[in-house]
Amino acid sequence: MAQNDSLSDFLASAVDAAKRAGEVIRDGFYKTKHVENKGVVDLVTETDKACEDLIFSHLKQLYPTHKFIGEETSAAYGAVDLTDEPTWIVDPLDGTTNFVHGFPFVCVSIGLTIGKVPTVGVVYNPIMDELFTGIHGKGAFLNGNPIKASSQSELVKSLLATEAGTKRDKSTLDASTNRINSLLSKVRSLRMSGSCALNLCGIACGRLDLFFELGFGGPWDVAGGAVIVTEAGGLVYDPSGKDFDITAQRVAASNPLIKDAFVEALRQSE
Amino acid sequence: MAQNDSLSDFLASAVDAAKRAGEVIRDGFYKTKHVENKGVVDLVTETDKACEDLIFSHLKQLYPTHKFIGEETSAAYGAVDLTDEPTWIVDPLDGTTNFVHGFPFVCVSIGLTIGKVPTVGVVYNPIMDELFTGIHGKGAFLNGNPIKASSQSELVKSLLATEAGTKRDKSTLDASTNRINSLLSKVRSLRMSGSCALNLCGIACGRLDLFFELGFGGPWDVAGGAVIVTEAGGLVYDPSGKDFDITAQRVAASNPLIKDAFVEALRQSE
Repeated sequence: MAQNDSLSDFLASAVDAAKRAGEVIRDGFYKTKHVENKGVVDLVTETDKACEDLIFSHLKQLYPTHKFIGEETSAAYGAVDLTDEPTWIVDPLDGTTNFVHGFPFVCVSIGLTIGKVPTVGVVYNPIMDELFTGIHGKGAFLNGNPIKASSQSELVKSLLATEAGTKRDKSTLDASTNRINSLLSKVRSLRMSGSCALNLCGIACGRLDLFFELGFGGPWDVAGGAVIVTEAGGLVYDPSGKDFDITAQRVAASNPLIKDAFVEALRQSE
Repeated sequence: MAQNDSLSDFLASAVDAAKRAGEVIRDGFYKTKHVENKGVVDLVTETDKACEDLIFSHLKQLYPTHKFIGEETSAAYGAVDLTDEPTWIVDPLDGTTNFVHGFPFVCVSIGLTIGKVPTVGVVYNPIMDELFTGIHGKGAFLNGNPIKASSQSELVKSLLATEAGTKRDKSTLDASTNRINSLLSKVRSLRMSGSCALNLCGIACGRLDLFFELGFGGPWDVAGGAVIVTEAGGLVYDPSGKDFDITAQRVAASNPLIKDAFVEALRQSE
């Protein structure tokens, strides 16, 4: 494990990279309304690629021995091979559909795992100018102010977030809406905002009490947010209640007080 | 019908009132994390009441002959009696659950109907500092810049918004999730942000392509947003495709190109 000093350096570098990528996203975000439909698709691809290049080249120059996993490159090269080496896991643009439509929940997500443990996390929403950060053992922050997960212990008073996902075959869709039906009978209300990383940050700052998502893209959606949640006093776990596996494309998060009730509600919703 | 000059005056007065109420909401929004659970409920009630009093006293002083309908007063006095007189219809705090949780989709909604037609609308989100305005025949604006509804004509590329609502009896819940299941098989994705008025404004500025909600609180949820949507080139209608009835607690909104396909998809989702 690296020293805390270098963890702070890693965070500062990731924040630099996220803010630069954020400028590119912000520029594109306000352009989507002014290009033709085909042009929007190109703009997303270009923005995604430009941000990943920018973040990777920034971090690779500083940390040439580290490993890198990105949504864009992994989509091109296939399976994710996460090792114990310090590994930067990057989603250059989380909330692509929101970006296309101009819905303000978009972000850059950068996570650093060491020994496969999420250790440094940065999630930056450049439209709302919200920068979430966390370092293992050193707390979680929103724009520099400490944040903490909610203290809600009752499902009936809890705000739940999940996502509709991208798979629309009948069995996935039925399972998903049955789950929502079951959970809605138990919680206060449901939010779907279209960004997995920002949902995790919502748990970290107490805006949301419960979050789960199944079948999202990959570890880049959760690597940044996971350490921010745990450093805010929250928990990240498999929706079954078992340990979180960053490569499993399954995540749940909440404060510790309500975890058991949430896992039981998720189990009953199957 | 009043002259356009006075409509501009009405709008300016409503913007003044919305901004003052917005300050009260903003103060409360950042306090919810620092009061006990019971205290949060009081804070919501106090904020709601204080904002309605503030808006009503501001507008009543300027327009003593006008009628007034507010969420708070109507909840206390029962049925809504909308006449042809100029009538201010006010939701002092739309997105109460979001307010409680610190989720940033909260707003003040102020609408003026004349001859029962939504004629002036103001929807202000004080957390994101987004001010949506519209005057019948004079266009719709976000922070002073003209806005327009999306030009999306295909369901499969459309972003849909709806809400889980507050009724959780089994038949309402089953109908609601069956509808979501059917619609999700046809659209790109789904957002639930917890504010009817802001969903309408999302349609007006093209962030959302499709919105419907059944069984919301009352005309105060839609009176401000309705004119903003229509002035942005969008349509507000009953989910059946029939004319919009501001007192019916049923609303759908979209651009004109996709209305027929959306109404058909809603029909198939019953």
